[in-house]
Amino acid sequence: MLPDYGKTFARWRAGAAGQWHDYTRHPFVEGLGAGTLPRTAFLHYLIQDYVFLTHFSRAWSLGVVKSETLEEMKICAGTVNALVNHEMQLHVKTCAAEGIDEDSLFAATEAVENLAYTRYVMDAGLQGDFLDLMAALAPCVMGYGEIGVRLKGSKSSDTPYADWIATYADPEYQAVCTSVGAMIDTAVARRIGDLAHAPRASGLQDRFNMATKLEVGFWQMGLNGQ
Amino acid sequence: MLPDYGKTFARWRAGAAGQWHDYTRHPFVEGLGAGTLPRTAFLHYLIQDYVFLTHFSRAWSLGVVKSETLEEMKICAGTVNALVNHEMQLHVKTCAAEGIDEDSLFAATEAVENLAYTRYVMDAGLQGDFLDLMAALAPCVMGYGEIGVRLKGSKSSDTPYADWIATYADPEYQAVCTSVGAMIDTAVARRIGDLAHAPRASGLQDRFNMATKLEVGFWQMGLNGQ
Amino acid sequence: MLPDYGKTFARWRAGAAGQWHDYTRHPFVEGLGAGTLPRTAFLHYLIQDYVFLTHFSRAWSLGVVKSETLEEMKICAGTVNALVNHEMQLHVKTCAAEGIDEDSLFAATEAVENLAYTRYVMDAGLQGDFLDLMAALAPCVMGYGEIGVRLKGSKSSDTPYADWIATYADPEYQAVCTSVGAMIDTAVARRIGDLAHAPRASGLQDRFNMATKLEVGFWQMGLNGQ
Amino acid sequence: MLPDYGKTFARWRAGAAGQWHDYTRHPFVEGLGAGTLPRTAFLHYLIQDYVFLTHFSRAWSLGVVKSETLEEMKICAGTVNALVNHEMQLHVKTCAAEGIDEDSLFAATEAVENLAYTRYVMDAGLQGDFLDLMAALAPCVMGYGEIGVRLKGSKSSDTPYADWIATYADPEYQAVCTSVGAMIDTAVARRIGDLAHAPRASGLQDRFNMATKLEVGFWQMGLNGQ
Repeated sequence: MLPDYGKTFARWRAGAAGQWHDYTRHPFVEGLGAGTLPRTAFLHYLIQDYVFLTHFSRAWSLGVVKSETLEEMKICAGTVNALVNHEMQLHVKTCAAEGIDEDSLFAATEAVENLAYTRYVMDAGLQGDFLDLMAALAPCVMGYGEIGVRLKGSKSSDTPYADWIATYADPEYQAVCTSVGAMIDTAVARRIGDLAHAPRASGLQDRFNMATKLEVGFWQMGLNGQ
Repeated sequence: MLPDYGKTFARWRAGAAGQWHDYTRHPFVEGLGAGTLPRTAFLHYLIQDYVFLTHFSRAWSLGVVKSETLEEMKICAGTVNALVNHEMQLHVKTCAAEGIDEDSLFAATEAVENLAYTRYVMDAGLQGDFLDLMAALAPCVMGYGEIGVRLKGSKSSDTPYADWIATYADPEYQAVCTSVGAMIDTAVARRIGDLAHAPRASGLQDRFNMATKLEVGFWQMGLNGQ
Repeated sequence: MLPDYGKTFARWRAGAAGQWHDYTRHPFVEGLGAGTLPRTAFLHYLIQDYVFLTHFSRAWSLGVVKSETLEEMKICAGTVNALVNHEMQLHVKTCAAEGIDEDSLFAATEAVENLAYTRYVMDAGLQGDFLDLMAALAPCVMGYGEIGVRLKGSKSSDTPYADWIATYADPEYQAVCTSVGAMIDTAVARRIGDLAHAPRASGLQDRFNMATKLEVGFWQMGLNGQ
Repeated sequence: MLPDYGKTFARWRAGAAGQWHDYTRHPFVEGLGAGTLPRTAFLHYLIQDYVFLTHFSRAWSLGVVKSETLEEMKICAGTVNALVNHEMQLHVKTCAAEGIDEDSLFAATEAVENLAYTRYVMDAGLQGDFLDLMAALAPCVMGYGEIGVRLKGSKSSDTPYADWIATYADPEYQAVCTSVGAMIDTAVARRIGDLAHAPRASGLQDRFNMATKLEVGFWQMGLNGQ
């Protein structure tokens, strides 16, 4: 069963149709669950993902800049803190075990697929309002949550990627998805009302779809990096 | 009779009630029409207004950054061009006649009332979307248009400020107000639909009201500078 | 003796000369130490300061957006977290004791002197780079640290504002000032080298001075609100 | 002989070494000169380039937002105007002749290589200062100028792309490159002084190199689109 991350996310997810499937069922993802993903591909992904997270943290910080309620500020500020001081540290630990230190991570050459994604998100925030930014941020946050939950229930018993899966299946990470989803629902109510009949519905869906498409490219980049 | 700058502006103007009156009927404005405004106050205003226009141009440029249609881009880019290459040059000419050169204008110390206004507008654009920025830009653009038209019909025959009044009563300036007003109507239709029943109505009205209040402070700064 | 917040801050502080004195020795500040500040002025200040902190948090978040090193990201993200989840909560507690709840605080009408300051800081970040933003943020952070330390050693034994003074004299707050000061020194070294002979020296000093001047206006607003 | 676009550009160009060659001598470019580029590739490129120019105009508008002198404002505002009201219209005309109207152009699905480039430029401006933005904008502006001049002298007499080449070899376009180059030199002098020994030299070079690399990807996208 799919985790429930709020009704706006459910609408966006349904609207992204095939792309959502391509993202959450990408061969890279299936390889994590089956344990067949080559280690070099995983490490290539992990290094890029570290760089991704630095810019993703910048994007969530832009979320604080664009917040209009205390609730929005708190959720976004908390997410930045979680990213900078926790999730990025997991990457640091995993990479350290492979002999890659944090300065190397921070200085890694950014793949174009990586850069395309984070800069698109930043610009969604600069061009639009808080919701434009959230529509571009949601696929990563919630997609990883959904992948984590699914793989946890279906993964091969001997996949070497069990830690990665556990991170995103973890109740703590799931709680982040739930609270971000609830905040988005409130933000939609506050700025739009009923999204189903709003002129902005298609523009926000476009943001979500483009970010989802860029997620597909990110996995593919990982796979190509093996 | 009031000029017609579109239905969104008419709504915002009505919503600003007393503040709009305080702005467009400020003693500084009445002094321009009657010719009783001290020259020192006018020059103080003019120097500050030059600095204001540099930041106002930056704000309209932010409008291009935040545009989502070609029409929005064209109107905003045209306004920046008109501000930087025309309206600011009028100030330069008038000030030159008084022995104040353009470098002095650009380097003038910004009054707090001046700074408060333009930076509020910039941040409205950074925090919100295109409409948040437009709601904060509209009072200046359209207020001056309305003042120009009214003073042209009521001004004292010997006011030394006839040139200033003519600038804003001019069909060319009125056409700017009309096209900006029409673009705002289209932008509202595109992003919100019916503004009357939209959750964002009060937030946009707040932006408009605050900018109107800051206009009152700007005139007062001029008057205090005599 | 003055606390040591780094060499860049020391240079900026010296460069702001009289304005720094007007800010840190403002009658409002002296009234906090002597205990003679009217309670109404303090509460007016406190409510405005709450609104100030929401925008100040947005400005520090813009600092994360503009960071170029992990160290900068961590310090800025930590400051946002401290502001949103700690300093603002102190205001909430103090105001609650006076019967003012947090929603009222968040919705308080922003005084122009307040708005001028925070929007100037935001725009410094939008217009310039990380250092432009830091030069505009430093007077508030470090000025409060300096005031806290000085008043702690000189305050009247029966001032009702001992809690306020203790907050900023506290080692934890002093540590924030020290780490922000050290980060600014590193950021200057990274982007400029020797500030003393850099073309940007005067521009950054202007930012610092303007923010200091706006701090003076903020205290005065508090005093006027009694 | 290479056109002279100022000493900062000359330094950046030399610093980009092989990447600059890959960009300005890309098979797509050589195909324009030789007339061997398939028409479908050219049209695919042209449609993407139209979308590119809308975002490139937004980036130059961000240049106005980040300007610190009147000269910078005027050059950037003039460039936006030239892009929105002239260069984009050339694309419209060429595409109209092929039966593609402007609304289709504006609504074209953005290729990832296209999106990556413009959003990287936008974020360079948001993260850094005016020079960070200029270092990311320069490769496109000046590279096209250099390509235009070179191809004009070496093109096949019967290439069907003579109009495209003429546009960028044109004295008017060359004058844009020269004035942008001169403005960048002044901007460097104002903010940095001697770039050769400045701590920011490598950071700005990185910006220039990344944008150059993304230009290579843009041509390749055109070629792949045939």
